[in-house]
Amino acid sequence: MSKQELEVPGQDADCCSGVSEAPLDEERAAELAKVFKALGDPVRLRLLSMIASRGEGGETCVCEMTPAFDLSQPTISHHLKLLRQAGLIDCERRGTWVHYWVLPGALDKLAGFLTAPQTAGAAA
Amino acid sequence: MSKQELEVPGQDADCCSGVSEAPLDEERAAELAKVFKALGDPVRLRLLSMIASRGEGGETCVCEMTPAFDLSQPTISHHLKLLRQAGLIDCERRGTWVHYWVLPGALDKLAGFLTAPQTAGAAA
Repeated sequence: MSKQELEVPGQDADCCSGVSEAPLDEERAAELAKVFKALGDPVRLRLLSMIASRGEGGETCVCEMTPAFDLSQPTISHHLKLLRQAGLIDCERRGTWVHYWVLPGALDKLAGFLTAPQTAGAAA
Repeated sequence: MSKQELEVPGQDADCCSGVSEAPLDEERAAELAKVFKALGDPVRLRLLSMIASRGEGGETCVCEMTPAFDLSQPTISHHLKLLRQAGLIDCERRGTWVHYWVLPGALDKLAGFLTAPQTAGAAA
């Protein structure tokens, strides 16, 4: 049986091959670089940690985040948009405010990419 | 031999508080953002994975990496410098070529930062 289904780019098997397992191909490198780039800014990292520290299923209103920064709300919203475009968070508007949460698995997937494979003493 | 003593900026206790545990303070966010920014480029990610996939204790000569890219060697060296400045890799010149390796623990530390704490069903 040749499982020739459509090749979803960031799918399971693919998602889990780590940085230490084999040289990355260009396509996957481009995909992952986008996510790391989104994390490569102190404001975005702080926003992400504010949202993530609410725990699974938790949400954070943009109105709770803005006061922690010396930045305008449009600037904060822009940073949040970049995190969203990177597939790290999602949001929903309810009334005046937009509420954000971390996409389940997004951070674990990235962490899995960075983690060295647990092969006990592979060298000979 | 200039194996610069690694001056680990965010030492132990600090190193392990994850993105999901508490909102990041500005200083740590700035520090981590620098590392993620270094990873936020496809060429650097590919270089890092070339080096990392040699495994612990493994090294990669810059001369082995350059042919995989359509880039000049100074450009490759510049990308490698950014990875080094981010504390992810280190290098040593031997004769004509510079050899690179991943700094032990650097990737695991980052992965640890991204990983959700393993608190079994914390909510009530």
